[in-house]
Amino acid sequence: MQRKIVRFVEEENLFYRDEKILVAVSGGVDSVVMLDLLCKMEVECGVAHCNFHLREEESDGDLEFVKNLAKAKNLAFYSVDFDTKKYAAENKISIEMAARDLRYNWFEQVREISGYKYVAVGHHADDVAETVLINLARGTGIHGLSGIKSKLGKIIRPLLPFPRKQLLEYAQAHSIHFREDRTNAETDYVRNKIRHQIMPVLEEINPAIRATMTENVQRFREVEQIYNRVIEQNRLHLVFTRENQLLISIPKLKELLAPVSHLYELLSLYGFHHRDIRNIAESINGISGKLFYSATHQLLRDREYFILSEITEENTKEYLISEDKEQLQAPLELTITLLDRTPGFQFPSDSKIACFDANQLQFPLKLRKWKEGDAFRPIGMKGKKKISDYFIDQKFSLQEKENTWLLLSGSKIVWVLGHRMDDRFKITDTTTKIYKINLI
Amino acid sequence: MQRKIVRFVEEENLFYRDEKILVAVSGGVDSVVMLDLLCKMEVECGVAHCNFHLREEESDGDLEFVKNLAKAKNLAFYSVDFDTKKYAAENKISIEMAARDLRYNWFEQVREISGYKYVAVGHHADDVAETVLINLARGTGIHGLSGIKSKLGKIIRPLLPFPRKQLLEYAQAHSIHFREDRTNAETDYVRNKIRHQIMPVLEEINPAIRATMTENVQRFREVEQIYNRVIEQNRLHLVFTRENQLLISIPKLKELLAPVSHLYELLSLYGFHHRDIRNIAESINGISGKLFYSATHQLLRDREYFILSEITEENTKEYLISEDKEQLQAPLELTITLLDRTPGFQFPSDSKIACFDANQLQFPLKLRKWKEGDAFRPIGMKGKKKISDYFIDQKFSLQEKENTWLLLSGSKIVWVLGHRMDDRFKITDTTTKIYKINLI
Repeated sequence: MQRKIVRFVEEENLFYRDEKILVAVSGGVDSVVMLDLLCKMEVECGVAHCNFHLREEESDGDLEFVKNLAKAKNLAFYSVDFDTKKYAAENKISIEMAARDLRYNWFEQVREISGYKYVAVGHHADDVAETVLINLARGTGIHGLSGIKSKLGKIIRPLLPFPRKQLLEYAQAHSIHFREDRTNAETDYVRNKIRHQIMPVLEEINPAIRATMTENVQRFREVEQIYNRVIEQNRLHLVFTRENQLLISIPKLKELLAPVSHLYELLSLYGFHHRDIRNIAESINGISGKLFYSATHQLLRDREYFILSEITEENTKEYLISEDKEQLQAPLELTITLLDRTPGFQFPSDSKIACFDANQLQFPLKLRKWKEGDAFRPIGMKGKKKISDYFIDQKFSLQEKENTWLLLSGSKIVWVLGHRMDDRFKITDTTTKIYKINLI
Repeated sequence: MQRKIVRFVEEENLFYRDEKILVAVSGGVDSVVMLDLLCKMEVECGVAHCNFHLREEESDGDLEFVKNLAKAKNLAFYSVDFDTKKYAAENKISIEMAARDLRYNWFEQVREISGYKYVAVGHHADDVAETVLINLARGTGIHGLSGIKSKLGKIIRPLLPFPRKQLLEYAQAHSIHFREDRTNAETDYVRNKIRHQIMPVLEEINPAIRATMTENVQRFREVEQIYNRVIEQNRLHLVFTRENQLLISIPKLKELLAPVSHLYELLSLYGFHHRDIRNIAESINGISGKLFYSATHQLLRDREYFILSEITEENTKEYLISEDKEQLQAPLELTITLLDRTPGFQFPSDSKIACFDANQLQFPLKLRKWKEGDAFRPIGMKGKKKISDYFIDQKFSLQEKENTWLLLSGSKIVWVLGHRMDDRFKITDTTTKIYKINLI
């Protein structure tokens, strides 16, 4: 086992022998064996222990145990107390997530301040298998199958090739004492179901299940590399940015072998989930105008592009209107009609209706509240007027101002809704198509 | 459910409504519901039932049940009896595999003879999830995760989107009778462990586990498509054939993002397993001369190429010797030395030693038994001589003939081992390097 860990450290390029390693030691068999192996490799180690205060007396016992272990080995010792439950409640996350956040943040602090090169954590082959199964059960693409990385930033995992059983055998063979680690048993419901109810059955099917899963993961990781490269190459052709928007070419998506995967990799960063993305992908072959929302972003299926933009606060939020749209429910109700210019065309006198020269409009149109600096050319006027000045002229109340919406084509104001059109978009003698909007 | 199956048939392009479908009906809930749904779609169906004779009275009861069902629905009925256990024993395969072979072969016969377009089988969403887990437990790459295809050749699977639970509910709601199918319970050990011990636990973690797994599989399938295309594109650059050999360029493999995956896809077709391929991949950065065997093929890590060739019967088997090889244990023991030609070079008189002009040799050399038609130029002679004539001249016994090995360079015989060299490879005044072989 000592030989195997040395080979693994070399193969995976985890660290050089003269680099200082901060070893995370809970007191459980994994971390205690890891510390022992690293010390036998004559690596300069420090010991870091977190007390999560999840099982009062036992937590304190763990602390005492690890402290003595560090002392016996003559190693620097660092410890910290966390109010894990409080942190979890405050951040509305699970105890498991809370413990993870707290632990890794603190490790990084100690590492940096005390001059360690890496933090070694005790994940092993059982964790790899369990993680794959957890991800499968929760829903995953290829990324969730490529297991746990042996090195990620400053975190290294030298025990990754070893199943827990082997660590226990090593501890026994070398009379290494450790604490029964029950943290997991209490905090991580899903992992425990997998560990205690599923893994033993898989082991009956395949006694070398952990090694097999580690091999599977190695294979998936190569597949993931190929996949990532293809996605990355195609991203360059698919996507460009315009102002604050991300535009994804629909014709180019259609040509791709795996459009859903590409959309997923592009959009999951913006809070869209797999199911949203299935729906978005279906709209590729549908009509334009459909809108999709994540918690932070909206995506419009426009004619040639999916247009992604951030959802900001209500006052600065923009609603896109694609060319095919015939009706809008939110943020305000209106109908849209595209008409041919007929000789007897009468401009409606209703302030709720506006008609524009369709050829002057650039789609998608935008609907938003007014903001400081907005200016337009009120119909019939030659010069520009600030919207704020227009409001003053019209003696708008504060509430009227706040409730006023603007329709924009590109960055130009087309209509102060229900009030005044812009001169640049009016019907002229050369107009052939009329774009008529009716506020309801 | 009726609407969903219609949509699935359309989306996956399973069949047109006017095409005749042979429906595989075991009598279990899956196949009986499938038959009901297809009949409601007004598809012209025939019913095919296999009696595997695995549980005597029950098997007969199933037959009776399905026969009556077909009669009641006024459908053509086909049935067959298999001696599954005998077939399994004869072909040294599991009962499960035997049943599958027999069933699919017979379905295809009936389909073709009786003019059906497709055979519909009752795999459903539970089978998809189970298959993924079985493959993971046994060891798999991406291919084992992409689930069960809804259409493969003439086999279609219209129930794939539905979990078994939904089929049971449908049967109950429509008062559809079915037989308790216990075939699986008795024949398929692994599938049953997954079905009865693992799936229920996963369901506790994620109540929609079957839908989630179906989604996972959709995602993996896209990843697989991307992966397949990349492998296929690179195959063209990596591989060429020479005579009966497949050559894989080692320098080009080294340039690839995922060499192990490429080797796997190239070599798994020839009976190499994943672990063999890990070893082969490791030899990329090692020295040449290493040989790897599958049940049917050998792979030589030569200098620039991996050379794949078939292992034929012992008498026609070829053993490759790469340029760096210094020793051979099988099929016979010999040592190889590369020498500089020195002025005082003495040609050894031992018949067990032969010396050749190294520059005349084309690597890898081949070692094999003689065969009809072989001919060479015995050293000192101008003309060609058939090996069979040489044997007659030398008064070889049958056994001596059978035990005689030939060393070849390309298709030319270099040495009749222990007997006579070929004139074309002898040491001449222009020889600078000598290739010396010593039989032990």
